[in-house]
Amino acid sequence: MLQKLLEPKSIAVIGASEDVTKPGGRLTLNILTKGFAGNLYLVNPKGGVIQGVKAYTSIAELPEAPELALIGVPAKFVRDSLQQLADKGAKIVVVLSAGFGEQGAEGKAEEKALAEIATKHNMLLLGPNCSGVMTYAHASKFTGVALELVKGGIDFISGSGATVDFLAEHAIRRGLKFNSFLTVGNSAQSGVPDLMDIYDAGHGPDSPKVMITYQESIVNPQKFLKASRSLNKKGVLIAGIKAGTTQAGSRAAASHTGAMATNDTAVQALFDKSGVIRVNSRQDMIDVAAILTLVKGKADGKRVAIVTDAGGPGVMLCDELSQLGFEVPHFKESTRQKLAEVLPAGAGTGNPVDTLPTSGAENLDKVLNILIEEEKDQIDYIVVMNGDAGMMDNRALYRVAKKYMDSSPIPVIPSYVSVLSSEEPLKMFREMGGCYFEDEVELARALGRVVNRPRIYEPETSAAGYDKKKIAALLEGCHGALTPQVTREVLQAAGIRFPGQIELTDKSGLKSVPFAFPWVLKVMGPLHKSDVGGVRVGIKDLAEAEKVWDDLLKIKDATGVLVQQMVKGTEVIIGANREPGYGHLVAFGLGGIYTEALKDVKFALAPLANEEASRLIQSIRSLALLKGVRGEPGMDMDTLRDILIRISLLVTDFPSIQELDLNPVKGYGKDIFTVDARVLVN
Amino acid sequence: MLQKLLEPKSIAVIGASEDVTKPGGRLTLNILTKGFAGNLYLVNPKGGVIQGVKAYTSIAELPEAPELALIGVPAKFVRDSLQQLADKGAKIVVVLSAGFGEQGAEGKAEEKALAEIATKHNMLLLGPNCSGVMTYAHASKFTGVALELVKGGIDFISGSGATVDFLAEHAIRRGLKFNSFLTVGNSAQSGVPDLMDIYDAGHGPDSPKVMITYQESIVNPQKFLKASRSLNKKGVLIAGIKAGTTQAGSRAAASHTGAMATNDTAVQALFDKSGVIRVNSRQDMIDVAAILTLVKGKADGKRVAIVTDAGGPGVMLCDELSQLGFEVPHFKESTRQKLAEVLPAGAGTGNPVDTLPTSGAENLDKVLNILIEEEKDQIDYIVVMNGDAGMMDNRALYRVAKKYMDSSPIPVIPSYVSVLSSEEPLKMFREMGGCYFEDEVELARALGRVVNRPRIYEPETSAAGYDKKKIAALLEGCHGALTPQVTREVLQAAGIRFPGQIELTDKSGLKSVPFAFPWVLKVMGPLHKSDVGGVRVGIKDLAEAEKVWDDLLKIKDATGVLVQQMVKGTEVIIGANREPGYGHLVAFGLGGIYTEALKDVKFALAPLANEEASRLIQSIRSLALLKGVRGEPGMDMDTLRDILIRISLLVTDFPSIQELDLNPVKGYGKDIFTVDARVLVN
Repeated sequence: MLQKLLEPKSIAVIGASEDVTKPGGRLTLNILTKGFAGNLYLVNPKGGVIQGVKAYTSIAELPEAPELALIGVPAKFVRDSLQQLADKGAKIVVVLSAGFGEQGAEGKAEEKALAEIATKHNMLLLGPNCSGVMTYAHASKFTGVALELVKGGIDFISGSGATVDFLAEHAIRRGLKFNSFLTVGNSAQSGVPDLMDIYDAGHGPDSPKVMITYQESIVNPQKFLKASRSLNKKGVLIAGIKAGTTQAGSRAAASHTGAMATNDTAVQALFDKSGVIRVNSRQDMIDVAAILTLVKGKADGKRVAIVTDAGGPGVMLCDELSQLGFEVPHFKESTRQKLAEVLPAGAGTGNPVDTLPTSGAENLDKVLNILIEEEKDQIDYIVVMNGDAGMMDNRALYRVAKKYMDSSPIPVIPSYVSVLSSEEPLKMFREMGGCYFEDEVELARALGRVVNRPRIYEPETSAAGYDKKKIAALLEGCHGALTPQVTREVLQAAGIRFPGQIELTDKSGLKSVPFAFPWVLKVMGPLHKSDVGGVRVGIKDLAEAEKVWDDLLKIKDATGVLVQQMVKGTEVIIGANREPGYGHLVAFGLGGIYTEALKDVKFALAPLANEEASRLIQSIRSLALLKGVRGEPGMDMDTLRDILIRISLLVTDFPSIQELDLNPVKGYGKDIFTVDARVLVN
Repeated sequence: MLQKLLEPKSIAVIGASEDVTKPGGRLTLNILTKGFAGNLYLVNPKGGVIQGVKAYTSIAELPEAPELALIGVPAKFVRDSLQQLADKGAKIVVVLSAGFGEQGAEGKAEEKALAEIATKHNMLLLGPNCSGVMTYAHASKFTGVALELVKGGIDFISGSGATVDFLAEHAIRRGLKFNSFLTVGNSAQSGVPDLMDIYDAGHGPDSPKVMITYQESIVNPQKFLKASRSLNKKGVLIAGIKAGTTQAGSRAAASHTGAMATNDTAVQALFDKSGVIRVNSRQDMIDVAAILTLVKGKADGKRVAIVTDAGGPGVMLCDELSQLGFEVPHFKESTRQKLAEVLPAGAGTGNPVDTLPTSGAENLDKVLNILIEEEKDQIDYIVVMNGDAGMMDNRALYRVAKKYMDSSPIPVIPSYVSVLSSEEPLKMFREMGGCYFEDEVELARALGRVVNRPRIYEPETSAAGYDKKKIAALLEGCHGALTPQVTREVLQAAGIRFPGQIELTDKSGLKSVPFAFPWVLKVMGPLHKSDVGGVRVGIKDLAEAEKVWDDLLKIKDATGVLVQQMVKGTEVIIGANREPGYGHLVAFGLGGIYTEALKDVKFALAPLANEEASRLIQSIRSLALLKGVRGEPGMDMDTLRDILIRISLLVTDFPSIQELDLNPVKGYGKDIFTVDARVLVN
C-alpha cells in the first residue's frame, strides 16, 4: 500500500481541467510540471486533450485500474466517481473536493457514505477536502508549488493542506529535504493515524527516519499510539502538532475540518506514551525536524561543543543550552593548546571556541578535527556558528562544515545566520544537501525538545501478589459505585495496602494484632463512641494499649474494641479515568488540604511502564514535599511507583472500571496506605 | 549629543586603510558606500589618497575637531590617538580596536586609562572592541554590510557587534526599518545604559518609538532604570536581551566582552521595573520589535480578530492566542451576514474569518472594512494571514493590507508565510514600508510578550503611621544584626504589626489587654515555665483567662503573667536584600514548613508601587494557598501589599539596611503579624 502511495505505477485525475485556477486543473499542472514516470490518466466528460494529455470521458473507459486515483469534481459528483473507481478496481482514492463535513450535518452524512463505499471495496480513502499527495515520485497535489522532494527525506502527514504548503516553503529555505507530503483533509475514512500505520507496515531498512504530523482531531488515538511506537522502535523519530486545543482553537478547527474538541490532557498523555515530540507551531516543527535530520539518530547526549565566530551569539547559545539542562563542558588543557596553535591571536580556545570573524575555512577544518580527535569522549554534538562579517569566503566555510556533517562521528549542527549577505553561499550549501538553523537560540530550543523528548517503554504486565482472578470474581456483575467493602477487597487483591484493622472481644488478642503501632482504639458497642470517650488515638505500645483497653471496657454497653492502624505522613492522590478512545488516564498528585488549591496533578496513559510511573511522580511541582520537609521522613518513591503500576494493571485488565480514586494515599517511607478509595464501574 | 551621534556634521576615521579586510579599511568602505553628507576625514600616517579620499597624516592636521571620531588602529596605539583627539577637541570617540579587557587584566587596565582620558576631557567614549555606529545618516561600522536605514525606525543599542549584524539581516528580511545601530563593545567608559540616557535626553516629538537593547553586563543598573522609565513615559517601548545569565553563558561572556556575572533575579527585577520587555534570542527580539512597530503604541487590548485564507494556521493562531490570555471574540450576527455577502460560498464568517485561498484583494478590502466598521468596539487588533496557494495576485492582497495598516484605527498585523512562492510580492510589500510575520504562532507569542509586558508605576512614598524620624533615631549608630528589641521597634515604627504582648502583675489588668483572643498566658518568675505547667495556649475569653490566672499564680515563685496574642493562619515570608548597583530586592514567598521544599519566592526592585507589590504577591505559584483552603479564611491581599510597601519604604529610606527578613508573617484576613524578624545593617 505504502509503495503505491509513494510511487504509483499509474495515476488517474478525475475532473482534470485546462483551467489551472480550478483544483482539477492545478493538480494536473503540478503532476505534469514535476513529471511522472508512470501512466497518467485524465478523466473529463468532455474528453479531448487537456494540458497536452489525452483525456478519457469516463472512468470505465480507462485502460487499467489506476494505482492512485484523485477526485477533483464538485462535491455532488464525488460519490458517483468513487463508486465508478471502486467498480474499476482502484484501491487508493484521494478526494480533493471540498463541501463536506466542514459545512455541516449534510456534508458529514455524505462523508459517511463515501467512507462506506471505500471500506466495502477495501479501498484507502483520503479526504475529502484535502489537497492531495506529493512525494519524491509525483506531485498529486493541487495547492502550493511543485517542490523538489528527495527520496529518504522527511515524511509529513497532515490534516491541513495549507500547513503542508506553508511549512514546506520555510523548511526548504532552511535546506530540509522531504520524502513525502500527505494530506488527509476531513478524514472521512482514514486519518493521520491510519496513514502512520501504513507507513509503519511499509517501513523498510532504507525508509526515512524522520516523520512529522499535523492533526486537528486524533481520529484513532489507539492506532496513533501503536503506529508511533512501532515506528519509534524502527528508529523513526516523530514530531507532531495537535491543534484546536483551546476553546477558540477548537471552534476554528470545527469550521475548518469539522474536528471535535478533545481533552488536551489525554492528547498530551497520548503523545508522551507514543514517544512523539509535541510542538505548537510550524516553525518549532521545522526546527525539531532539522535537529532530527542533522543528528541522524544520535539524540541522547547532553554535552555540546560550540565553535563560533562571534561572541554575543555564543553567549546566548550557552545560556539557552544551560537553561535546558545541557552541558557546555570545559575542554582539556591539551585541547586548548592545540586550538591555540591553529587559531589567530585573541581567539577563544575554551568552549565556545571563538575563531573570530577573520578565521577561514582552513582554520575551521583544523578546529573541528581537533575537537573530534581530542574531545570525542566528552561531547555529543558540535554546533558550528557562522555569520558573514563581510571578510570571509563563506562558501569554503560551509564546505568544510558539510564535510564534517557527513563524516564526523559526532553530529555537527550548523547555525548560519547571515540570510541576506550569505544568500548565495547558503543556496550552495542547501544544494550540497546541507540543512541549518538561522538562529542559535532556536537551535538550542529544538535540541532541547529532541533530547528531552518522551521515550517509549514496555508496560509492566505483572506485580507480586496482584490477583487478577480474584479481582475478576469480585467485579463479576458489579455496576456503578462499588461498596466500601468491595472497593477495599478489589484494591487489596491488586496489592494496594489499606491501614490494618481488627475487631477484638478478648484483651489477649492485643498481643497478636498483625500491624505496627501507633494504633487507634475504638470501643465497640456504644453508638456515639466519641461522646463517651470511646476513641483513643496515638497508642504507642502494648502496655498503653492494655491500659486503654481496660478504660474502654468500663464504658457502658462496651462489647469489645476495634483496633486500627494509625497512618501519619504526607498525602498524595492516585486515580484513573477512562477516556473514550484513549484508554485510562492514570493521575498522580499532591493530596491533603492543598489538593484543590494547588491543582498539582499529572496524568499518564495506562498501561504504565515503571519508567513512566516514576516520571509521573517526578513531574508534579510539589515533588519536594513528598521527599519530606523539616526532617520528616519522605515517601518512598519505589513504593509510590508500585502503587501506580498496580492501578495501571487493574484498569488495563478491567476496562469496565470507569473511575477510580485513591484519596488520600498516606504514609512515610515504604509504609504507604490508601486511607480512602472509590471505584466506579460500568 | 544624540544629534551628533546620529547625524554628525563631520566624521574622522583614525587608521583608515585601502585594505578593506582591515577594520579601518572596511569602515571607510562602508561610510563611502552608504554615502555621508558631512565632512569625512581619513587619517593614516602615510597620508596619500585612500579609497579615493585624501588622507591626513595626523589628527592634529585635521581642519576641524570632528563631531564623531572612530579609531581603528592597533590596540597599542589607541591611547595616543585618543589623547590627540582630546587635544583636538573631539567630543565623541568610538574605539573599534580589539585587544583590551576581553584579553585579561592588562587590557582592563588600558581600558581604564582610555576611560580616564575621555572623562577628563568630557568626551563620550564608545568601545573599545566595538563595531561602530550606523544610522540613517552614516555607516560608521566596520562589520556587516552598509544597510539602508530609515529615519524614525527602530533604535538598537548593543553590547555585541555581531548581534547587531545578525539581527539586522533577519529583521530587514521581515521589513523592519531601523533608525540607528550603536555598539558599545567593552563599555570602558559608556555602556548601553549611558547611551539610553543620551537617547532619552535627546528625545523629541518625532523621535523613534521603538528601542531594542543587548547587554552582557548591565554596567549601570540605576541609569538603565532611569532612562528606560523616562523613555517609556515618552511613549518609547523597549525590548532587551541580557545574555550571560547562566554559568556557561557568563563564562562565554567573560571571554567575549569581559562581562561580569550578575544575579539574574536582580536583572529580571530591573527589567520588570524598567518596563523593558525581556527576550532571550534575536528572533524573539525581532518579533517583539515587529509588534511594537505595527501596533504604533496601541498595545494594551487583548481582543483579536483574524482574517485568514487557510484553516489550519487559523486554528494554531487561535490556540496560541488563547493560551496567552487573548480573546478571539465572536462577531455579531449582523457582521457575519455582511461578511457572507462579500465572501464566496464555503467561506467562514466567524472569527477567524476564513476567506478561502481563492478570495482576492477586493474581498479582503471589503472584509477589513466590515470588521473595522462593525466590530471596532470589541476588537483591538486584526491579524491578516496570507499564504500563496498559487491562485491569487498576492501583490494586490498586500497592497490592500498596507492601506489598512496605514489608516485603520485598529492595528493590522500581517502574517505572510509564503516566503518562497511570494518572494517578489513580499519584496514589494517591504519596499512599500510594510513589515510582517512569517509565522502566525510567533506573531501570537510576540503579541503576548508585548501586551503582557511589565508596566511602569510611580512608587509609593508614604504609608499611614510610617515614622521615618523615629526609625532614623533607632538606627542611628547601629551596625550588624539588630537586637530583637531594636528590630521590633524599627519595624513597628515602619507600621509592621507584631503579635501583642503585655506583662501583668495584677489580675484586673486582664480586662484591658489591648489585643484580641486567643491568648497565650505564661507565668512570670519561674525559670522553666513549661516544666511547671506555666504556659497555657488557646485562651478563648476573659473568664478562661481569669481562671488560668488563678492557676498560674499558684505556681511557686510566680510574680505575674505574660499575656501574648496567639497567631494562627497561613504563613508567608517577606524580605529585602541589597544588591550592589541595583538597590534593594524585595522578596515575597510562601512560608511555613514548605518554604524550603517549594522555593516559591518572587522578587521586585524597591521602591515599590502598589501595583508592583500586588503583582509580586500574585506571582507566586502557591497564591491559592494564601486565599484560604478548605474553608479556612485567607490572608487579605491589601494587608499583605501594605506590609510590602512599608518594607519598600524602609529599605529605600535607609539603604544601610543590607538584609531584612520577616519570617514568618502569619495570620488570617487583615490580622497579619510578623512573628519573627531579623535585620542586618551595614
